[in-house]
Amino acid sequence: MSDWVGDDNIALLTDLYELTMAASYFENDMRDQATFDLFIRELPEQRNFLVACGLEQALSYLENLHFTEDHLGYLRSLDLFEDRFLSFLGDLRFTGEVWAVPEGEAIFACEPLVRVTAPLIEAQIVESFLLNCLTFQTMIASKAARLKIACGDREFVDYSLRRDHGVDAALKAARASFVAGAVGTSNVLAGKLYGIPVSGTMAHSYVMAFGDEISAFRAYARQFADRTVLLIDTFDVEEGTRNAVRVAKETEAAGGKVDAVRIDSGDLADLTRSVRKILDEDGLDHVKIVLSGDLDEYRIRRLLEANVPADVFGVGTQLGTSGDAASLGGAYKLVQDSNGPRIKLSAGKATTPGRKQVVRFGDGNDERHDLITLEDEEVAGGRPLLERVMAEGHPTRPPEPLAVLKDRCRRAVTSLPERLLTLEGTPDPYQVRLSSRLRDLVDQMHRSSR
Amino acid sequence: MSDWVGDDNIALLTDLYELTMAASYFENDMRDQATFDLFIRELPEQRNFLVACGLEQALSYLENLHFTEDHLGYLRSLDLFEDRFLSFLGDLRFTGEVWAVPEGEAIFACEPLVRVTAPLIEAQIVESFLLNCLTFQTMIASKAARLKIACGDREFVDYSLRRDHGVDAALKAARASFVAGAVGTSNVLAGKLYGIPVSGTMAHSYVMAFGDEISAFRAYARQFADRTVLLIDTFDVEEGTRNAVRVAKETEAAGGKVDAVRIDSGDLADLTRSVRKILDEDGLDHVKIVLSGDLDEYRIRRLLEANVPADVFGVGTQLGTSGDAASLGGAYKLVQDSNGPRIKLSAGKATTPGRKQVVRFGDGNDERHDLITLEDEEVAGGRPLLERVMAEGHPTRPPEPLAVLKDRCRRAVTSLPERLLTLEGTPDPYQVRLSSRLRDLVDQMHRSSR
Repeated sequence: MSDWVGDDNIALLTDLYELTMAASYFENDMRDQATFDLFIRELPEQRNFLVACGLEQALSYLENLHFTEDHLGYLRSLDLFEDRFLSFLGDLRFTGEVWAVPEGEAIFACEPLVRVTAPLIEAQIVESFLLNCLTFQTMIASKAARLKIACGDREFVDYSLRRDHGVDAALKAARASFVAGAVGTSNVLAGKLYGIPVSGTMAHSYVMAFGDEISAFRAYARQFADRTVLLIDTFDVEEGTRNAVRVAKETEAAGGKVDAVRIDSGDLADLTRSVRKILDEDGLDHVKIVLSGDLDEYRIRRLLEANVPADVFGVGTQLGTSGDAASLGGAYKLVQDSNGPRIKLSAGKATTPGRKQVVRFGDGNDERHDLITLEDEEVAGGRPLLERVMAEGHPTRPPEPLAVLKDRCRRAVTSLPERLLTLEGTPDPYQVRLSSRLRDLVDQMHRSSR
Repeated sequence: MSDWVGDDNIALLTDLYELTMAASYFENDMRDQATFDLFIRELPEQRNFLVACGLEQALSYLENLHFTEDHLGYLRSLDLFEDRFLSFLGDLRFTGEVWAVPEGEAIFACEPLVRVTAPLIEAQIVESFLLNCLTFQTMIASKAARLKIACGDREFVDYSLRRDHGVDAALKAARASFVAGAVGTSNVLAGKLYGIPVSGTMAHSYVMAFGDEISAFRAYARQFADRTVLLIDTFDVEEGTRNAVRVAKETEAAGGKVDAVRIDSGDLADLTRSVRKILDEDGLDHVKIVLSGDLDEYRIRRLLEANVPADVFGVGTQLGTSGDAASLGGAYKLVQDSNGPRIKLSAGKATTPGRKQVVRFGDGNDERHDLITLEDEEVAGGRPLLERVMAEGHPTRPPEPLAVLKDRCRRAVTSLPERLLTLEGTPDPYQVRLSSRLRDLVDQMHRSSR
């Protein structure tokens, strides 16, 4: 497709001002190292924590960043840039150092999620992509963690592909959902790229294409046997359940087992109870019930609080778009350069200066809190969250398997203070404090700027 | 990047059930033609109309659809598909016919936006991508049309890249925004791919990197002259304005003209008025004021209703995520096959059967309404919206230039009944009716299904 993008095109996925600023830095010989923090300014309402996600894609971008002749030709056509600068851009690679909170870890507002130190131009031009990449996956992982809280010991699957904001969102949503609790995805390409288990059922059009439901069910079960999930609400759920029972029995007689039935419309609570009853009466208590259709963490919680006997939830729109908070206020700010720590004072958008670390205290107990420190502070008893993940433009380690991220996320979320594990915003948010040295620095810079 | 996707990978961007259904159709020799409608089930609250968008990318996908050996290898590894089917998939191309509402046209709930007729398997497996592609761009174009309504004769620019849901969203958001009213984008790659004008200013980090504001402004203006937009709120807006005035005067003395100043934080109404006053007092009435920072159509309307002298609005998050309605309920439903019209009766999700056309009556007058008809109905006096855009798997015409889409959108929106051109939901929505033949068909199919 003419407008599709591969590796070779990604460097231009940047805001124009990154390049005009870079041209100005180049013109003014500003080549010193600078440090930028990427952080989320505040948590959306009803989010008590976030789950860091998207680092692998961010590091891959940084490692592969380069401008092609084709890019330079386009930039030349804008009549904004001198040839000398374009030739510099042609040779540019990212050579910097990156510290980051590992994927799957819980994070909070204003904590540096990623810290980039590189020659000013390199550190600046990666801003747009890093924000796009890291805030999206962090947003989705944070949403998925809420679904996991609502689901308890039941499972949920990512069904969001058709509602995601384009192709890349569909892939990253599947990845981030899996990290933070989904057991699989319907998205085949995400399955292939990330090794996520794929699952699927059938559409209403399948039943309609066969004309009658029983023929559709029979055909599917004959072919897919134990991996059969029958969609029972195309015409009438009760009749659909009876048809499913017949086919499940026929499948058993042939030595197989229908895995589940799915309900996608109507009053899910009532229908699930009736369907469960019919299945159980017919000795099909091993046949699971999958629910889908505009589900989110609130609807799932209501269903489970009412003891609705659902086994698996397929969640699409609300998972893939984080519909109740479809963006995170990510910021990428200069915090230090060759002149020392830097601060921005804009109304409501002030920054915390200096190269920083985040230290987590009291994992798993009630004294738990985070302390944001300067990077060279010695702090006893805490666990530093930011790790050096890139040096001189190369990752310091191979990408972590998703299973590791998934496990880290599970531990991170379950060890959070109980009060944060609700779907509502807590009146008593997690404590993130500045170290006294950092507070002194902030005060001093505020004073000297007056 | 290892997980990035080009042309050759896109066929797997589908829900697994599309492929299991396809395998079942293959196994059962169901090769007849089928027709699917893609439509938006209902308008989000506060949307009185939608703007069709995304067709070009959808057609490009259909024309290029193919499964590679690499895809087939992955599918084989799932242990779900027989070799015979995988070999069939390897040869599969989309050979169908597509009718569609042209991009930029206004559309309403339940009107077929795209109608696909193809052998059942081909028509089925494209569902996930078509929904993903068309509903996202339609959602963004619809949001952009609202921003255009709020802006009136002022301009707005897409600044959404950093908040968009991944790479593809950022490109498509820039495209759809431009179609429905934005004058440009900050997204350089979107500028290159689609020929959209790119624009940009500077970040706070730029001013901070220079240390003092006046040096930063001077450096920028010296280099970019007439294309200079000075960001005046890094430290203090009034002082920033004075610095901008000095640099604008110096630039004039050197034969150039600073284009604008930008305010990104604080009380935008008050600040804009003070800044305008200072600029005007210094004879700089040609220097425009660009506003940004969490803007949406409501905030822009409030500013303009209060006569705030802003010239250009940079809109990011709310434009690129359609934050108040971050998804559209798109559906892709079987409406006809070799046995005739088809209907789905699921509670709350019933479909309208048959191959249909949408006819628009009374463009530009108060009798305006749409009539959904069967495709072969002769209806006098109306304008059919669905055009044949693909035949035998190939587009019937070259892609339309964005300028044409932009012009169509402008005409479509300005000719809508006045009551729809508000930011609130109207109590008197646009009338979409079914023709009497179509109503009879629906009634008859409901009766016969009982």
